[in-house]
Amino acid sequence: MEQVRPLAAGADPVWATLEAAGDRWTFLIVREAFFGVRRFVDLQRNLGIARTPLSERLNHLTASGVLERVQYQERPVRHEYRLTEMGLDLYPLIVAMLRFGEKWLRGDAEASLRHRGCGGDVELRLQCAACGEEVDAKSTDYSRTPPDPSRS
Amino acid sequence: MEQVRPLAAGADPVWATLEAAGDRWTFLIVREAFFGVRRFVDLQRNLGIARTPLSERLNHLTASGVLERVQYQERPVRHEYRLTEMGLDLYPLIVAMLRFGEKWLRGDAEASLRHRGCGGDVELRLQCAACGEEVDAKSTDYSRTPPDPSRS
Repeated sequence: MEQVRPLAAGADPVWATLEAAGDRWTFLIVREAFFGVRRFVDLQRNLGIARTPLSERLNHLTASGVLERVQYQERPVRHEYRLTEMGLDLYPLIVAMLRFGEKWLRGDAEASLRHRGCGGDVELRLQCAACGEEVDAKSTDYSRTPPDPSRS
Repeated sequence: MEQVRPLAAGADPVWATLEAAGDRWTFLIVREAFFGVRRFVDLQRNLGIARTPLSERLNHLTASGVLERVQYQERPVRHEYRLTEMGLDLYPLIVAMLRFGEKWLRGDAEASLRHRGCGGDVELRLQCAACGEEVDAKSTDYSRTPPDPSRS
């Protein structure tokens, strides 16, 4: 919680994540991909988004390295969009949005995320890797290291 | 990872979170608030954002219930923006963005988040609340429950 120096937007990890993920639609496309929705027509129907903006977002996510376009059928040729290893790493972020929205903002529908093994509720936990204690904003310190000139 | 039915945007917890948080600038303002930057001039300097767009975002975050405007000085009258209980709950989301950006996208600068108690690295862990096992997208199932008509 200490005051920190400003950081150039290009080197800022939060800004970089928001750039790669793009905008609201893009986050929703990633969310759908996690839930097994990978084809253009299914994304279009589930999200209620027009063809052109959907194409633009899919191109952006592919260029950012979050999704890859994979052919799954030959005749006729059909493609689907799969999460890359990098894209799969967005899962905690999507779960964090889901949990926040469920707790503070959700409408009538209820969403539920469960462990496939035992059916238990999935929780997002911030903890110290060293001592295992649960942490929050008040018990953590953030520091930004300026670029190391010897590395460039 | 199973295919799920579409959900009206208004009832979608991820969409609702993105609406409350607004846009990229808004996420960065929330991030700064977690790191102790709460005054208009400090936000403006740290983020390199002009007065008008910063005002708009602060008004949006205050209206959404994420921040509250609090007077901290009488002569002259000065206000700062503090995270509400709801806003504090955005911490896992900001940490998820930070960690993702650090791992996949970061520039030259290094960011570090440490446990104040023991100095250990802070990690974000997705786990099953019932059995404690670590989970990921492949080991979780998502279901959406349609609105319950008896509740409206």
